Amino acid sequence: MPKIKITLPDGSVKEYHKGITAGEIAFGIGKRLGEDALIAKINGKLKDLFVPINEDSTLQIITYKDKEGLEAFRHSTAHLLAHAVVEMFPDAKPTIGPVVEEGFYYDFGIEHHFVPEDLVKIEQRMHEIVKKEYKVERIELSEGEAKKLFKNNPFKIELIQEFHEEKQPISAYKQGDFIDLCRGPHIPHTGKIKAFKLTKIASAYWRGDPKNQQLQRIYGVSFSEKSMLDAHLKQVEEAEKRDHRKIGKELEWFNFFEESPGSPFFYPKGTIIYNLLLEFIRNEYKKRGYQEVITPLLYEKSLWVTSGHWEHFKESMFVLESEGKEFALKPMNCPSHVLVYKSKSRSYKDLPLRIADFAPLHRNELSGVLAGLTRVRKMSQDDAHIFIAPEQIEEEIFRVLDFTNFIYREVFDFDYKVELSTKPEKFMGNAEGWSKAEEALKKALEKKKIAYEIKSGEGAFYGPKIDFHIKDALGRDWQLATIQLDFQLPERFEATYVGADNAKHPVVMIHRALFGSIERFIGILVEHYAGKLPLWLAPVQVRILTVADRFEKYANKINEELEKHNVRVEADSRAESVGYKVREAQHQKIPLILTVGEKEESKGTVAVRTIDNKVYFDVKVDDLLSKILKNIKEKKVKVEF
Amino acid sequence: MPKIKITLPDGSVKEYHKGITAGEIAFGIGKRLGEDALIAKINGKLKDLFVPINEDSTLQIITYKDKEGLEAFRHSTAHLLAHAVVEMFPDAKPTIGPVVEEGFYYDFGIEHHFVPEDLVKIEQRMHEIVKKEYKVERIELSEGEAKKLFKNNPFKIELIQEFHEEKQPISAYKQGDFIDLCRGPHIPHTGKIKAFKLTKIASAYWRGDPKNQQLQRIYGVSFSEKSMLDAHLKQVEEAEKRDHRKIGKELEWFNFFEESPGSPFFYPKGTIIYNLLLEFIRNEYKKRGYQEVITPLLYEKSLWVTSGHWEHFKESMFVLESEGKEFALKPMNCPSHVLVYKSKSRSYKDLPLRIADFAPLHRNELSGVLAGLTRVRKMSQDDAHIFIAPEQIEEEIFRVLDFTNFIYREVFDFDYKVELSTKPEKFMGNAEGWSKAEEALKKALEKKKIAYEIKSGEGAFYGPKIDFHIKDALGRDWQLATIQLDFQLPERFEATYVGADNAKHPVVMIHRALFGSIERFIGILVEHYAGKLPLWLAPVQVRILTVADRFEKYANKINEELEKHNVRVEADSRAESVGYKVREAQHQKIPLILTVGEKEESKGTVAVRTIDNKVYFDVKVDDLLSKILKNIKEKKVKVEF
Repeated sequence: MPKIKITLPDGSVKEYHKGITAGEIAFGIGKRLGEDALIAKINGKLKDLFVPINEDSTLQIITYKDKEGLEAFRHSTAHLLAHAVVEMFPDAKPTIGPVVEEGFYYDFGIEHHFVPEDLVKIEQRMHEIVKKEYKVERIELSEGEAKKLFKNNPFKIELIQEFHEEKQPISAYKQGDFIDLCRGPHIPHTGKIKAFKLTKIASAYWRGDPKNQQLQRIYGVSFSEKSMLDAHLKQVEEAEKRDHRKIGKELEWFNFFEESPGSPFFYPKGTIIYNLLLEFIRNEYKKRGYQEVITPLLYEKSLWVTSGHWEHFKESMFVLESEGKEFALKPMNCPSHVLVYKSKSRSYKDLPLRIADFAPLHRNELSGVLAGLTRVRKMSQDDAHIFIAPEQIEEEIFRVLDFTNFIYREVFDFDYKVELSTKPEKFMGNAEGWSKAEEALKKALEKKKIAYEIKSGEGAFYGPKIDFHIKDALGRDWQLATIQLDFQLPERFEATYVGADNAKHPVVMIHRALFGSIERFIGILVEHYAGKLPLWLAPVQVRILTVADRFEKYANKINEELEKHNVRVEADSRAESVGYKVREAQHQKIPLILTVGEKEESKGTVAVRTIDNKVYFDVKVDDLLSKILKNIKEKKVKVEF
Repeated sequence: MPKIKITLPDGSVKEYHKGITAGEIAFGIGKRLGEDALIAKINGKLKDLFVPINEDSTLQIITYKDKEGLEAFRHSTAHLLAHAVVEMFPDAKPTIGPVVEEGFYYDFGIEHHFVPEDLVKIEQRMHEIVKKEYKVERIELSEGEAKKLFKNNPFKIELIQEFHEEKQPISAYKQGDFIDLCRGPHIPHTGKIKAFKLTKIASAYWRGDPKNQQLQRIYGVSFSEKSMLDAHLKQVEEAEKRDHRKIGKELEWFNFFEESPGSPFFYPKGTIIYNLLLEFIRNEYKKRGYQEVITPLLYEKSLWVTSGHWEHFKESMFVLESEGKEFALKPMNCPSHVLVYKSKSRSYKDLPLRIADFAPLHRNELSGVLAGLTRVRKMSQDDAHIFIAPEQIEEEIFRVLDFTNFIYREVFDFDYKVELSTKPEKFMGNAEGWSKAEEALKKALEKKKIAYEIKSGEGAFYGPKIDFHIKDALGRDWQLATIQLDFQLPERFEATYVGADNAKHPVVMIHRALFGSIERFIGILVEHYAGKLPLWLAPVQVRILTVADRFEKYANKINEELEKHNVRVEADSRAESVGYKVREAQHQKIPLILTVGEKEESKGTVAVRTIDNKVYFDVKVDDLLSKILKNIKEKKVKVEF
């Protein structure tokens, strides 16, 4: 039998007989790998484990630990779901069942409206199918064969027709009696799927278009081990408790109304948080040489044509007409700031010029994807554009990194990781400029001692970028700051500076937002701290509770004293029990709860209860005040006595 | 000859022969009145002086001092202009020539494009016509006669046809050979017009519609005496010097770009002014029990239908579509705040609830009427809506009056006058409620010792209101604060509160904005102070000038000291002459210019030059700092040492 050479990821080369499968090779390497194997990457392409290999190839065995393995695993669970549904509801027409963040869904054309009880039954049937350990097979089909096979499913027929017209190969996967049109790859048998849960029912439309037939969607999650599923469900439960939408509404910080989808209303307490974040950033701007501007929101089409948004971003903009001209609400500030930059001639001596703006931005997001503060139609960013000469890249990026680190690490105590995305295949400008810029970014990162991962070729076509991901208290990853070099926009607008050589040179722009959108950042903070914001950010910082009516005067005296120093304080002298008043204040997530009674009044003290439920007795009011003011000034995450 | 009885404004009744004219009666009363008379008000209607009076009538002789007299005078000057133009340009077709604020204009259909030199020549011809003292005559015409008379002027033919269809009488006025279609009344002869000036040429369209023929417009002003014209021209010149658009651009405070008509760009220095005004108002809000919210800008049509804006204000809103639904950018905050109010059940104990908002507002103003910061498409107001029970009107209005007086009189030192507009013919609600509300407003004004004029019947249909007009340094009147009671909007939205009787009652709203739009207020401040803003508002408060290079260190030391106390200061240590540097700082309208040299360094002092060009020598740096900080804290209009 002819031999072929297989190169493994560690560089070792092994000989096998022609026609061997990746699954067999995996078992050959080791039983554990054989069992963990889900799919394979052969010559850089994802394939089923059971595909025969007929030529010299590179091979990587993909397990659950790889992103691609995880996705194939979830995709196979989606097939498992469809398998169970068509067994139980023979009139159900499976449409598509993709992988999404954290899991998968499958959309069905079906008369029946799924209810939660159905999910339990479907899960049972899925477990039964798992137990049968059906082998998963791939079938290559001609257009005619495919149409015949799926003749009862108009959705699949539509897809087959499209694949045919686009000259794409048509394939299907079979497990037991269930066959689904699919590109694959899939895991080798249903028995590999063990720990899953169907989580949600939703309505959807065929191809997301409300003009099409309505479908029934079932969401699910799937893991390779039960312990992982349990951990996931626990995290979901904890995340639900911390859901910023829930907390925002309960504490009257912010809310949404159907009259303005995706556009938050910040109530008075939420507005305090919002304005404190702006004040904080503005103070940093003063120290760090940024200049704030206030710019319009509506711009004529011509600006968007010049900036390229009309061509690439129009779908996401709100467009309107006035006096026969088209205008769009701005989705980002960059073109406004280029206009400001270009309002006069700029010299190299004026650079870096750091222009900051908190203008409300609008994006015409589909109402279906809106999600609390984290996906909105209206937001403001702590946005700035820095105009520099090319030789200033390293120094200025270093400053921005310093600023970002200060906010994430020193103020909010977030862990973060950093990615540097470099020149993509299609890029603007010259390769030499790019490599100089990338070197400058690397040097700045190294000088600031920030570890980073290189995402090779993942930069935008107009420049390399640095992305920050923070980890919140539940271990979730949030992409926040982006620091983006841009050679293109200045060129589109012919934005230049006069150099020391008295000639005009194209200026370089840095786009940067550190919070990202203020709205989204507040949403993340609320979830990260489970509503228990640091003292300096809490809308109400202190509540004073009286043990009985007669201490109202003493409570008011302390209240006044704190208020005089701009502490956000309120007194609760209602004739309720202390226990009740404490619980209420805790529910309001007030960082410091003071209790005053006989002893406190006579000694000029208070009893302090922190949000972590630590209690300190006999705290002198003066000491308390100075501790509070120090904590606020230093923007500590915790209050300690 | 039959007699008729004429009742004069003082109530006296005189007998005259039938057919006497108002002009004759005026001369009969006195030569001066006869000469000042321009038109007459007979039985409440404005008439020409030369119309015979044939029955018992009331009569008021109207002179230049009356608004109607002034308007007739200007209108007659417009005829005079047209008279001169058709004599000089026989192909010119006069269209219409109305009175506008401060003067008049006339639009001509004409091939020729007027140039400034034409205006001088036309003015000369106008003076010649004045000298001829042409008698002005009124001619009543049938449709046929009118069309024959104006057969060469298609614009007039169109107007005649309209008058005819609307069954309106058709009349014309004749002076010398010039006849114009006109309702009148007019002054009795051209000799009364003495002091006028043609000020501006512009393009216009017939009936303001760009689809119609283009016309040439000439603007002019007209006064009864040369001294008045001179005073007016001087004020115009002074106003031009103070024009906020000019100052804003020169000092790089703000500017406009064609990409966003009517929407100001505030540059860094302008943004400092803007944010200081917001900070000032926010601090007052804290003291005065207002709560700020942040609200969306885009709302679905349904909200605007409920609020009534869709029916009454749609033309002025920017409307757009998303996912098949109509949305509008908000032109005002009221409906947003009603949504906030209605987000939970409110008790009488929660009232007054004062909700403040600085959201950007958009109004789809015609591009032709946009004017710097005073007429814009995008702005923010220092806007608040106060929700009260009816019995709280007096107390709450008193508080708002106190707030307004504080800002206008105590902070900005403006003179102001106040108007109270009462129940109009068509009104909402019951008359008793109105009269109680009006009484409450009067009591509040009297308690605050604010003189006011009653504008009887000029309230909005939904409630009475109080308007504030300030007078600026040039004596110009600006309408600013409006305090408006509203019974209607709460009803449209069914916004209620639970009273002490445990029943639901409709809440009353107060709309109030004290600056009005922040943008417009900044425009007015810039013109009022001619750019020389009070110290606390100046973007750069202090500039330190060195007499020679070697004092740079000393200048920087003072700079640092002031900066440490948040004074906005900069040092100018360039090797330029002090005189040059002083002039530059003065041009930048910097309130305090410090000069440092040998003597100052050795004594630890500075020489101070204020924006009024007063110079103080040997000022100790400590004294200077404490004076600056005190002045800023107290928000003084002037700096004195």
